Amino acid sequence: MKENRIYNFNAGPAALPLSVLEEIRDSFLNFAGSGMSITEISHRSKSFDDIINDAVARTKRLLKLDDKFHVLFLQGGASMQFCMIPMNFLQEGKSADYVNTGTWSTKAIKEAKLQGKPIKVVASSEDKNFSYIPKNIEFSKDAVYVHITSNNTIKGTQWANFPETNGIPLIIDMSSDIMCKPFDVEPFGLIYAGAQKNIGPAGVCMVIIREDLLNLVPDNLPAMLKYSTFVSTNSLFNTPPCFAIYIIQLVLKWIEETIGGLDKMEEINRKKARLLYKTIDDSGFYKGTTELESRSMMNITFRLLDEELETRFVQEALENDLGGLKGHSSVGGCRASIYNATTLEAVETLTDFMKTFERKNG
Amino acid sequence: MKENRIYNFNAGPAALPLSVLEEIRDSFLNFAGSGMSITEISHRSKSFDDIINDAVARTKRLLKLDDKFHVLFLQGGASMQFCMIPMNFLQEGKSADYVNTGTWSTKAIKEAKLQGKPIKVVASSEDKNFSYIPKNIEFSKDAVYVHITSNNTIKGTQWANFPETNGIPLIIDMSSDIMCKPFDVEPFGLIYAGAQKNIGPAGVCMVIIREDLLNLVPDNLPAMLKYSTFVSTNSLFNTPPCFAIYIIQLVLKWIEETIGGLDKMEEINRKKARLLYKTIDDSGFYKGTTELESRSMMNITFRLLDEELETRFVQEALENDLGGLKGHSSVGGCRASIYNATTLEAVETLTDFMKTFERKNG
Repeated sequence: MKENRIYNFNAGPAALPLSVLEEIRDSFLNFAGSGMSITEISHRSKSFDDIINDAVARTKRLLKLDDKFHVLFLQGGASMQFCMIPMNFLQEGKSADYVNTGTWSTKAIKEAKLQGKPIKVVASSEDKNFSYIPKNIEFSKDAVYVHITSNNTIKGTQWANFPETNGIPLIIDMSSDIMCKPFDVEPFGLIYAGAQKNIGPAGVCMVIIREDLLNLVPDNLPAMLKYSTFVSTNSLFNTPPCFAIYIIQLVLKWIEETIGGLDKMEEINRKKARLLYKTIDDSGFYKGTTELESRSMMNITFRLLDEELETRFVQEALENDLGGLKGHSSVGGCRASIYNATTLEAVETLTDFMKTFERKNG
Repeated sequence: MKENRIYNFNAGPAALPLSVLEEIRDSFLNFAGSGMSITEISHRSKSFDDIINDAVARTKRLLKLDDKFHVLFLQGGASMQFCMIPMNFLQEGKSADYVNTGTWSTKAIKEAKLQGKPIKVVASSEDKNFSYIPKNIEFSKDAVYVHITSNNTIKGTQWANFPETNGIPLIIDMSSDIMCKPFDVEPFGLIYAGAQKNIGPAGVCMVIIREDLLNLVPDNLPAMLKYSTFVSTNSLFNTPPCFAIYIIQLVLKWIEETIGGLDKMEEINRKKARLLYKTIDDSGFYKGTTELESRSMMNITFRLLDEELETRFVQEALENDLGGLKGHSSVGGCRASIYNATTLEAVETLTDFMKTFERKNG
């Protein structure tokens, strides 16, 4: 590859588009003629206003958000959202429904319960080691919101279609699949995504909040834990993570202008996932770990015959410039994370390697 | 200047050492032979472990911290600390003392009061528009901690010597002057600093916490708001702001290896501040805004005859490649922020310009 780079299948922080990285590098000492690095400009400058406003505008265009949605950039990652969501929306005995589809859902549930909120876990796939997405869920009529995790990075599952909640706002953790395809935003009250998988680097979380949910936010919360603080200041209540927001802006620009929007993005992502799953399914050597219809388009998890072989697979892959293929430490096995910035070329190189490795070891 | 850069007197985000920026640029597409950008590597990788451990080790060496201190890197800036400090340390009617020396102290006090904590403002310089640092303060015997703000970025004041609290742990916001000089850490229970002024970019806050303060932290706090969460995970409970921590590491390395430590750093900082204050005091044209013995070494605030002249000063300075000299919007006037990375050459160029501007307009 160019510049001695490798094919990066990291689960997050993850690959970024090469053209974005090159643009950052080339202007790193002098951003937009300012004579300063992007890391040195004021968050109150016109230059930075242009960046954050462009990032918001592109998010709205890409997801077809109308004016009832606010796009925010917060710190603390998805983990901070696990805490802020119940804190902002569940006052005085109000309850919400949660669906448990894996590690991140479990953490979101734990944080809500820790605050003493009477939330209800209405469905879970824990019975089969989170290898599927539950169906036909019945939601509580009095739930303030329904919380789901859109894609399970660790177990490799993803909602193909979001559940029907009969008007109860969906709150969704989209950290590992936001902007991977178009979707209908109407049922959503709040969408959040740690940027470090599909849209940027670590250190910033995109939050999209629907206007009416702000009515639930109590006055007496700490300023930094209150969604209304960031809505009323365009995410500039205090110094935001400027550089991370800048990368998001560039990645969204790349999706719009280089890729050609979310329909095109989905087309590429489906092609990549299809190729990888086909290589697994055709082999008899690699084994997928999730139910077919719950398979993730972003994180492709698979096992080999034994752990020794898996270790060797990951090692030899790296020697062939294919990095980040080790499964999450909590589950083992192998995983190829193929987010937006992972190219089809990268996946083709990986599947070629997989076939060669199979021939030698099958 | 090299690479069409300007002299940057921004108050934060602010100037970074040119050699640090060059190193980031040069390795931006391939960090330490990984074949990945620093923005693409995993926070669970050995590469990143080396970065964060080096940043911690350098902080400990520079500030002479022994093992009872933990060095953490959190998100949310100093503003999040305003909320976390009372939340972690003031349970069940416990109280703390706060000293109000300006905008940031006022915000810290507001956030503690918002949580219903019975804190006491034991001294304030609000009577003279925060133009001085209070002296001879009497602290409450039952205070769990005493909170002060080390340097007032907006008003241009700084504690020359920290107050004697007779064993009550000091908690200090050092966002705008950490690492500007050596100081005795013994009286401190917690030191925090948003990085974007003296040690890095926006998006990360350094927190140094003394072991015994962890005993005060209640179990039932949200994980992301609890200091113990980050102590027990070396700041890796969830994905940290990797790139911002990397810049801190490089800046601390620059302080240790290029500058030669905090004694040398102080020598340079004092020289810069002396030169600038002398230019102001000798002029009769520029007027300092703070009491002499409370003057900040980091943020030099001054006024000109009227606002029209101030606007012209800032504008003409920028035309001469001297940026960021406008005072904070809440106070007006002019301000030169001369943090660690602002060179003596930059200050000499500024004082030359000030003399020329005075000759033309005085």
